[in-house]
Amino acid sequence: MSKQELEVLGQTQECCPGLLTAPLDEEQATELSKVFKALADPVRLRLLSMIASRAGGEVCVCDLTPAFDLSQPTISHHLKHLRQAGLIDCERRGTWVYYWLLPEMTDRLAGILTRPAGQPLAQPAQTPAGAAS
Amino acid sequence: MSKQELEVLGQTQECCPGLLTAPLDEEQATELSKVFKALADPVRLRLLSMIASRAGGEVCVCDLTPAFDLSQPTISHHLKHLRQAGLIDCERRGTWVYYWLLPEMTDRLAGILTRPAGQPLAQPAQTPAGAAS
Repeated sequence: MSKQELEVLGQTQECCPGLLTAPLDEEQATELSKVFKALADPVRLRLLSMIASRAGGEVCVCDLTPAFDLSQPTISHHLKHLRQAGLIDCERRGTWVYYWLLPEMTDRLAGILTRPAGQPLAQPAQTPAGAAS
Repeated sequence: MSKQELEVLGQTQECCPGLLTAPLDEEQATELSKVFKALADPVRLRLLSMIASRAGGEVCVCDLTPAFDLSQPTISHHLKHLRQAGLIDCERRGTWVYYWLLPEMTDRLAGILTRPAGQPLAQPAQTPAGAAS
Protein backbone atom coordinates (compact mmCIF):
# COMPACT_ATOMS: atom_id res chain seq x y z
CA MET A 1 0.00 0.00 0.00
CA SER A 2 2.87 2.35 0.57
CA LYS A 3 4.44 1.56 -2.76
CA GLN A 4 3.05 2.71 -6.01
CA GLU A 5 3.39 0.39 -8.96
CA LEU A 6 6.56 1.53 -10.58
CA GLU A 7 9.40 -0.16 -12.24
CA VAL A 8 12.27 0.31 -9.85
CA LEU A 9 15.77 0.01 -11.13
CA GLY A 10 18.55 -1.84 -9.46
CA GLN A 11 16.58 -4.90 -8.53
CA THR A 12 17.15 -6.97 -11.63
CA GLN A 13 20.88 -6.88 -11.34
CA GLU A 14 22.57 -9.07 -8.82
CA CYS A 15 25.34 -6.75 -8.00
CA CYS A 16 27.59 -4.04 -9.09
CA PRO A 17 29.67 -4.16 -12.19
CA GLY A 18 32.72 -2.03 -11.57
CA LEU A 19 32.81 0.94 -13.87
CA LEU A 20 36.55 1.27 -13.45
CA THR A 21 37.64 -2.36 -13.43
CA ALA A 22 36.22 -3.93 -16.58
CA PRO A 23 34.34 -2.84 -19.68
CA LEU A 24 30.59 -2.73 -19.10
CA ASP A 25 28.42 -4.66 -21.51
CA GLU A 26 25.47 -2.98 -23.18
CA GLU A 27 22.90 -4.21 -20.71
CA GLN A 28 24.90 -3.13 -17.67
CA ALA A 29 25.58 0.25 -19.23
CA THR A 30 21.92 0.80 -20.08
CA GLU A 31 20.81 -0.10 -16.57
CA LEU A 32 23.41 2.11 -14.94
CA SER A 33 22.79 5.04 -17.26
CA LYS A 34 19.20 5.25 -16.01
CA VAL A 35 20.38 5.84 -12.47
CA PHE A 36 22.85 8.49 -13.58
CA LYS A 37 20.11 10.10 -15.65
CA ALA A 38 18.05 10.47 -12.50
CA LEU A 39 21.02 12.32 -10.96
CA ALA A 40 21.63 14.44 -14.06
CA ASP A 41 19.32 17.25 -13.05
CA PRO A 42 19.97 20.05 -10.55
CA VAL A 43 16.48 19.95 -9.05
CA ARG A 44 16.64 16.21 -8.51
CA LEU A 45 20.11 16.49 -6.98
CA ARG A 46 18.88 19.15 -4.59
CA LEU A 47 15.83 17.05 -3.70
CA LEU A 48 18.00 13.99 -3.12
CA SER A 49 20.43 15.93 -0.94
CA MET A 50 17.56 17.39 1.09
CA ILE A 51 16.08 13.95 1.63
CA ALA A 52 19.39 12.22 2.35
CA SER A 53 20.62 14.80 4.83
CA ARG A 54 17.41 15.03 6.79
CA ALA A 55 18.10 14.38 10.43
CA GLY A 56 15.08 12.18 11.05
CA GLY A 57 15.77 10.10 7.97
CA GLU A 58 12.66 11.13 6.11
CA VAL A 59 11.06 14.28 4.86
CA CYS A 60 7.54 15.38 4.04
CA VAL A 61 6.98 16.58 0.49
CA CYS A 62 5.43 19.64 2.11
CA ASP A 63 8.89 20.54 3.41
CA LEU A 64 10.55 20.04 0.03
CA THR A 65 8.43 22.17 -2.27
CA PRO A 66 8.96 25.56 -0.55
CA ALA A 67 12.67 25.37 -1.42
CA PHE A 68 11.89 25.50 -5.14
CA ASP A 69 10.18 27.92 -7.43
CA LEU A 70 8.35 25.01 -9.03
CA SER A 71 4.86 23.61 -8.90
CA GLN A 72 3.96 20.67 -6.70
CA PRO A 73 3.34 18.42 -9.75
CA THR A 74 6.78 19.26 -11.12
CA ILE A 75 8.41 18.41 -7.81
CA SER A 76 6.42 15.19 -7.68
CA HIS A 77 7.57 14.32 -11.17
CA HIS A 78 11.21 14.75 -10.16
CA LEU A 79 10.66 12.69 -7.02
CA LYS A 80 9.07 9.94 -9.09
CA HIS A 81 12.15 9.91 -11.31
CA LEU A 82 14.41 9.49 -8.27
CA ARG A 83 12.15 6.75 -6.98
CA GLN A 84 12.14 4.87 -10.27
CA ALA A 85 15.91 4.94 -10.17
CA GLY A 86 15.85 3.20 -6.80
CA LEU A 87 17.40 6.17 -5.01
CA ILE A 88 14.52 7.01 -2.69
CA ASP A 89 11.26 5.50 -1.52
CA CYS A 90 8.11 7.04 -0.09
CA GLU A 91 4.93 6.44 1.84
CA ARG A 92 1.70 8.37 1.91
CA ARG A 93 0.34 9.24 5.34
CA GLY A 94 -2.88 11.17 5.23
CA THR A 95 -2.46 14.28 3.14
CA TRP A 96 1.27 14.10 2.64
CA VAL A 97 3.84 11.81 1.15
CA TYR A 98 7.07 11.18 3.07
CA TYR A 99 10.36 10.38 1.35
CA TRP A 100 13.57 8.74 2.46
CA LEU A 101 16.86 7.71 0.92
CA LEU A 102 17.53 4.15 -0.18
CA PRO A 103 21.24 4.07 0.72
CA GLU A 104 21.76 0.74 -1.03
CA MET A 105 21.70 2.54 -4.38
CA THR A 106 24.05 5.36 -3.41
CA ASP A 107 26.33 2.74 -1.81
CA ARG A 108 26.27 0.83 -5.07
CA LEU A 109 27.13 3.91 -7.10
CA ALA A 110 29.92 4.86 -4.70
CA GLY A 111 31.24 1.32 -5.02
CA ILE A 112 31.40 1.24 -8.78
CA LEU A 113 33.11 4.63 -8.83
CA THR A 114 35.73 3.60 -6.30
CA ARG A 115 39.11 2.50 -7.54
CA PRO A 116 40.06 -1.07 -6.73
CA ALA A 117 41.95 -1.19 -3.43
CA GLY A 118 45.68 -1.40 -3.77
CA GLN A 119 45.51 -1.00 -7.49
CA PRO A 120 46.21 2.58 -8.45
CA LEU A 121 44.99 3.35 -11.92
CA ALA A 122 47.88 3.73 -14.29
CA GLN A 123 48.67 7.14 -15.58
CA PRO A 124 49.36 7.52 -19.28
CA ALA A 125 52.81 6.27 -20.15
CA GLN A 126 53.70 9.29 -22.17
CA THR A 127 53.43 12.81 -20.85
CA PRO A 128 53.77 15.83 -23.07
CA ALA A 129 57.41 16.86 -23.08
CA GLY A 130 57.90 20.12 -21.25
CA ALA A 131 54.25 20.44 -20.46
CA ALA A 132 54.49 20.12 -16.73
CA SER A 133 51.98 21.92 -14.61
CA MET B 1 49.14 21.09 -27.38
CA SER B 2 47.68 18.04 -25.79
CA LYS B 3 44.65 19.85 -24.48
CA GLN B 4 41.96 21.21 -26.67
CA GLU B 5 40.27 24.39 -25.59
CA LEU B 6 37.30 23.14 -23.70
CA GLU B 7 35.56 24.15 -20.59
CA VAL B 8 36.35 21.41 -18.15
CA LEU B 9 34.11 20.93 -15.17
CA GLY B 10 35.22 20.37 -11.66
CA GLN B 11 37.94 22.96 -11.60
CA THR B 12 35.93 25.90 -10.42
CA GLN B 13 34.82 24.21 -7.27
CA GLU B 14 37.20 23.88 -4.40
CA CYS B 15 36.03 20.57 -3.21
CA CYS B 16 33.23 18.20 -2.84
CA PRO B 17 29.90 19.07 -1.38
CA GLY B 18 28.49 15.92 0.13
CA LEU B 19 25.33 14.87 -1.61
CA LEU B 20 24.20 12.90 1.42
CA THR B 21 25.25 15.18 4.24
CA ALA B 22 23.74 18.58 3.51
CA PRO B 23 21.35 20.13 1.01
CA LEU B 24 23.14 21.25 -2.15
CA ASP B 25 22.66 24.83 -3.24
CA GLU B 26 21.64 25.62 -6.80
CA GLU B 27 25.15 26.27 -8.03
CA GLN B 28 26.56 23.07 -6.57
CA ALA B 29 23.66 21.06 -7.96
CA THR B 30 24.04 22.57 -11.42
CA GLU B 31 27.75 21.83 -11.48
CA LEU B 32 27.33 18.29 -10.28
CA SER B 33 24.41 17.54 -12.61
CA LYS B 34 26.68 18.16 -15.59
CA VAL B 35 29.01 15.38 -14.52
CA PHE B 36 26.14 12.99 -13.95
CA LYS B 37 24.73 13.96 -17.33
CA ALA B 38 27.98 12.84 -18.92
CA LEU B 39 27.46 9.47 -17.22
CA ALA B 40 23.79 9.27 -18.16
CA ASP B 41 24.35 7.53 -21.47
CA PRO B 42 25.11 3.85 -22.11
CA VAL B 43 27.68 4.52 -24.83
CA ARG B 44 29.57 7.00 -22.67
CA LEU B 45 29.51 4.61 -19.71
CA ARG B 46 30.91 1.83 -21.88
CA LEU B 47 33.59 4.15 -23.25
CA LEU B 48 34.52 5.29 -19.76
CA SER B 49 34.71 1.72 -18.48
CA MET B 50 36.86 0.69 -21.44
CA ILE B 51 39.22 3.59 -20.83
CA ALA B 52 39.34 3.21 -17.05
CA SER B 53 39.95 -0.52 -17.09
CA ARG B 54 42.66 -0.44 -19.71
CA ALA B 55 45.75 -2.14 -18.37
CA GLY B 56 48.23 0.39 -19.69
CA GLY B 57 46.21 3.30 -18.35
CA GLU B 58 45.34 4.73 -21.74
CA VAL B 59 43.62 3.64 -24.88
CA CYS B 60 43.74 4.66 -28.52
CA VAL B 61 40.48 5.83 -30.02
CA CYS B 62 41.19 3.29 -32.75
CA ASP B 63 40.67 0.55 -30.14
CA LEU B 64 37.43 2.05 -28.88
CA THR B 65 35.41 2.51 -32.03
CA PRO B 66 35.32 -1.16 -33.16
CA ALA B 67 33.33 -2.05 -30.04
CA PHE B 68 30.42 0.11 -31.17
CA ASP B 69 28.14 0.18 -34.15
CA LEU B 70 28.60 3.92 -34.33
CA SER B 71 30.52 6.30 -36.54
CA GLN B 72 33.87 7.73 -35.52
CA PRO B 73 32.42 11.28 -35.20
CA THR B 74 29.69 9.98 -32.89
CA ILE B 75 32.23 8.24 -30.70
CA SER B 76 34.34 11.39 -30.67
CA HIS B 77 31.33 13.42 -29.64
CA HIS B 78 30.71 11.12 -26.68
CA LEU B 79 34.37 11.24 -25.71
CA LYS B 80 34.29 15.03 -25.84
CA HIS B 81 31.33 14.99 -23.47
CA LEU B 82 33.26 12.81 -21.00
CA ARG B 83 36.24 15.10 -21.31
CA GLN B 84 34.22 18.24 -20.72
CA ALA B 85 32.91 16.63 -17.56
CA GLY B 86 36.47 16.21 -16.32
CA LEU B 87 36.24 12.42 -16.37
CA ILE B 88 38.91 11.71 -18.99
CA ASP B 89 41.66 13.52 -20.82
CA CYS B 90 43.37 12.87 -24.13
CA GLU B 91 46.37 13.57 -26.27
CA ARG B 92 46.84 13.35 -30.01
CA ARG B 93 49.88 11.44 -31.21
CA GLY B 94 50.20 11.33 -34.95
CA THR B 95 47.05 9.92 -36.49
CA TRP B 96 45.34 8.84 -33.29
CA VAL B 97 44.05 10.33 -30.09
CA TYR B 98 44.77 8.51 -26.82
CA TYR B 99 42.45 8.71 -23.82
CA TRP B 100 42.91 8.08 -20.12
CA LEU B 101 40.83 8.35 -16.97
CA LEU B 102 41.07 11.34 -14.66
CA PRO B 103 40.55 9.46 -11.39
CA GLU B 104 40.20 12.68 -9.40
CA MET B 105 36.68 13.09 -10.76
CA THR B 106 35.54 9.53 -10.16
CA ASP B 107 37.11 9.74 -6.69
CA ARG B 108 35.15 12.92 -6.09
CA LEU B 109 31.89 11.32 -7.20
CA ALA B 110 32.54 8.24 -5.09
CA GLY B 111 33.22 10.55 -2.15
CA ILE B 112 30.01 12.52 -2.39
CA LEU B 113 27.99 9.31 -2.73
CA THR B 114 29.61 7.71 0.30
CA ARG B 115 27.80 7.84 3.59
CA PRO B 116 29.57 9.74 6.35
CA ALA B 117 31.75 7.37 8.36
CA GLY B 118 30.23 6.19 11.60
CA GLN B 119 26.99 7.92 10.84
CA PRO B 120 24.53 5.46 9.40
CA LEU B 121 21.73 7.21 7.60
CA ALA B 122 18.56 7.06 9.59
CA GLN B 123 15.80 4.87 8.36
CA PRO B 124 12.30 6.30 8.37
CA ALA B 125 10.94 6.48 11.87
CA GLN B 126 7.69 4.89 10.90
CA THR B 127 7.54 1.42 9.42
CA PRO B 128 4.57 0.08 7.53
CA ALA B 129 3.90 -2.42 10.35
CA GLY B 130 2.07 0.09 12.44
CA ALA B 131 1.33 3.75 12.74
CA ALA B 132 3.70 5.14 15.31
CA SER B 133 4.27 8.75 16.27
